[in-house]
Amino acid sequence: MKNYQYTSISGTEQNNAYEVTHVSQLKEYVDRTVIMHGSIYKIRKMKGFSFLILRTARFCIQCVCDDKELLNELQEETCVRMEAEVVREERAKLGVELHVKHLTILSAPAALMPVVINGKLMETSLETKLDFRPLTLRNEKERAIFKLQEGILRGFRSFLQENGFTEIHSPKIVYAGAEGGVNIFKLDYFGREAYLAQSPQFYKQMMVGVFERVYEVGPIFRAEKHDTARHLNEYTGVDFEMGYIESFHDVMEMEAGMLNATLTMLEQEYSFELELLGVRLPRIETIPALKFSEAKALVAERTGRVFRESHDFEPEEERLLSEIVERDTGSEFVFVTHYPAQKRPFYVMEDPENPGETLSFDLIFRGLEITTGGQRIHDYEMQLQKLQTRGMDPEAFESFLMMHRHGMPPHGGLGLGLERFTARLLGFENVRQACLFPRDINRLTP
Amino acid sequence: MKNYQYTSISGTEQNNAYEVTHVSQLKEYVDRTVIMHGSIYKIRKMKGFSFLILRTARFCIQCVCDDKELLNELQEETCVRMEAEVVREERAKLGVELHVKHLTILSAPAALMPVVINGKLMETSLETKLDFRPLTLRNEKERAIFKLQEGILRGFRSFLQENGFTEIHSPKIVYAGAEGGVNIFKLDYFGREAYLAQSPQFYKQMMVGVFERVYEVGPIFRAEKHDTARHLNEYTGVDFEMGYIESFHDVMEMEAGMLNATLTMLEQEYSFELELLGVRLPRIETIPALKFSEAKALVAERTGRVFRESHDFEPEEERLLSEIVERDTGSEFVFVTHYPAQKRPFYVMEDPENPGETLSFDLIFRGLEITTGGQRIHDYEMQLQKLQTRGMDPEAFESFLMMHRHGMPPHGGLGLGLERFTARLLGFENVRQACLFPRDINRLTP
Repeated sequence: MKNYQYTSISGTEQNNAYEVTHVSQLKEYVDRTVIMHGSIYKIRKMKGFSFLILRTARFCIQCVCDDKELLNELQEETCVRMEAEVVREERAKLGVELHVKHLTILSAPAALMPVVINGKLMETSLETKLDFRPLTLRNEKERAIFKLQEGILRGFRSFLQENGFTEIHSPKIVYAGAEGGVNIFKLDYFGREAYLAQSPQFYKQMMVGVFERVYEVGPIFRAEKHDTARHLNEYTGVDFEMGYIESFHDVMEMEAGMLNATLTMLEQEYSFELELLGVRLPRIETIPALKFSEAKALVAERTGRVFRESHDFEPEEERLLSEIVERDTGSEFVFVTHYPAQKRPFYVMEDPENPGETLSFDLIFRGLEITTGGQRIHDYEMQLQKLQTRGMDPEAFESFLMMHRHGMPPHGGLGLGLERFTARLLGFENVRQACLFPRDINRLTP
Repeated sequence: MKNYQYTSISGTEQNNAYEVTHVSQLKEYVDRTVIMHGSIYKIRKMKGFSFLILRTARFCIQCVCDDKELLNELQEETCVRMEAEVVREERAKLGVELHVKHLTILSAPAALMPVVINGKLMETSLETKLDFRPLTLRNEKERAIFKLQEGILRGFRSFLQENGFTEIHSPKIVYAGAEGGVNIFKLDYFGREAYLAQSPQFYKQMMVGVFERVYEVGPIFRAEKHDTARHLNEYTGVDFEMGYIESFHDVMEMEAGMLNATLTMLEQEYSFELELLGVRLPRIETIPALKFSEAKALVAERTGRVFRESHDFEPEEERLLSEIVERDTGSEFVFVTHYPAQKRPFYVMEDPENPGETLSFDLIFRGLEITTGGQRIHDYEMQLQKLQTRGMDPEAFESFLMMHRHGMPPHGGLGLGLERFTARLLGFENVRQACLFPRDINRLTP
């Protein structure tokens, strides 16, 4: 019988290949030799030597190289591994630079870049930026946006975990839309019509009956035909839902706490990116809240402008409201509560003392709505009646109604758009700037 | 001018509403009164009093109630808030029980349960379990599966974070399939044909050029027509991809490390669920690896069974291989490497010393493939040629090729199916048992 040889994978080696990547580590190695890898982000020819900027996983590091033969071979975006001495250099951004002793080319580009990615600013249109996304994301500042986005989610998750929320994963191919039938993508599912989920609404409510508090981070699909600076057809939704609330104020309290914890984490762990992008973080002490009808009146009164009578805000009203509230209270966030029932979905609870107004809210941050939330109907009869009043067929929502029929606690929750929050935090006009590979009515690539 | 009143949301109240939920907390309150909320999971009538089992977010707690009037009103699945005294009781599972002093009904079910959810075991078919998912997930053991699944992801994420991976979110509506054209869902995207992503493959590779190491957790869509115990049409994929590898062994090392760290976290933080479900965690010291061709021969030789000559395993071969390897080495995991190129996608690197064999691997755990990974092609010419050899149109993959053309480090990665891993860990025969709301060729609800 042949003697079969097993190779052994121990799982303990994974750090060895990583070597030095953090600047904090580098500073410990001054006057010593380190092994680094990365991509040559930029070459600046000087007299008798060149500066090479090495792009590593998180930082760009200035290197000095005087090997002429080597320099002749090197191009920008070549991937290298180098041995280098760490030298203190006050003029370098990081306080140290690397003197290259030995450099190995791991892979070289096959063509010149079609777009300049290594300038201080990316001087190109958003369209071009997006067309060449696999390349333009290599820009130091461009990628810092998404490093911060990682930090935002880490902040959210760690806060929610600490507050007893269980992470769930609900299906994105669904049998019914939660947010109304217009903006929904249809799909052929083995001969049946199915849809792409507009939100995890039904599922997170069901899961409140199971875990009491749940959250989900996942794609949200909206077949909106508007091509605006605030809409994406696919975005990353952060949804949470909590049971045993006393009112929808509990949900707003939870969100304020989550945002606060997240801003603190960003300040502590992402100062490099915050500084690189010149981000001014908002402060949250308390977030002011006012009713939709009052907010409407406030904007009209203070600006003297007339807006359409409607059950929703126009984007311009949200912007003006934000300005007024900031002037009045210093807060860049404002909750607007009690939206009219006409504009809210069928699962939202109406104010028993004032039917027609819902126990719901939006959070507006620097002029843009980033969150919609509220209390949901938990009573079976109430939910059934609401469906019927709206002319919807209860049969179609049988598995949703199942949870109401068999006991649900009072509950509420919210959905937050990750790209919108990131964009407002970083001061971008267009939400696409905060999305790695945006999808809109005209864009399906890359 | 009217004086507008802002309400203040401070974000510091969110813990107050939570009160006592953890057993560890309860034990500190022995002989004192606590406020608890939850759902009445089970009522057991005794002489002169009843046992109520209160289902809270994570634990079920035995309560004693002797208020006859109240007991007449209470049904199972009623949501309540109670004041109760914590009493030491050695015979109770948790070492304490609650003596109800005051109980408020927050909401009551409107109908009797169509399926028994509060027995020790859910004695019902998988079909029924899934049909009534919003209810059957309330079963103590059923929900523990998904609490453990949360723990698995927490373990993965925390390991990847510590090892320098950046979390990304790539689009699920895509312009081309990464894994071949058959098992792909088609979509009408504003008049254009689009697809649901079969994997984040292209995007995670692109992002290696940006962050060096990236990971994503998100839905994976496969329009497979098989109705088997191992397939889902939508599942949660855990994908990571890492640059500057020396060989695909680096990827396997990383996975072994990730699994090890995760099993440790489960042991430390999820012992309650592990015990409840009677889970035996596997041990990882080293994971044995062997080549596909050798693995095929090994199974044939040891079992004397003849399998189809093919470029892949049959499920039965995977199962037998697992048994043999466990007998030989004690490991419940086994890496199979060097799969034939015919069965692997166009982005997989072939062994330069042995073309036809790929630098790829599967991880088999307790008889089921849970991961596919390997080294990818990073060289532009090589990738271009591979597409052409396969008769694929490079034009269609322009934004994928963009990254190769402009410099990519040697890199590799893997994709792991969360539900498959969970199912094998918990010893389930059917992967649907480890998915909250499974989608298969026949099932689109709930």
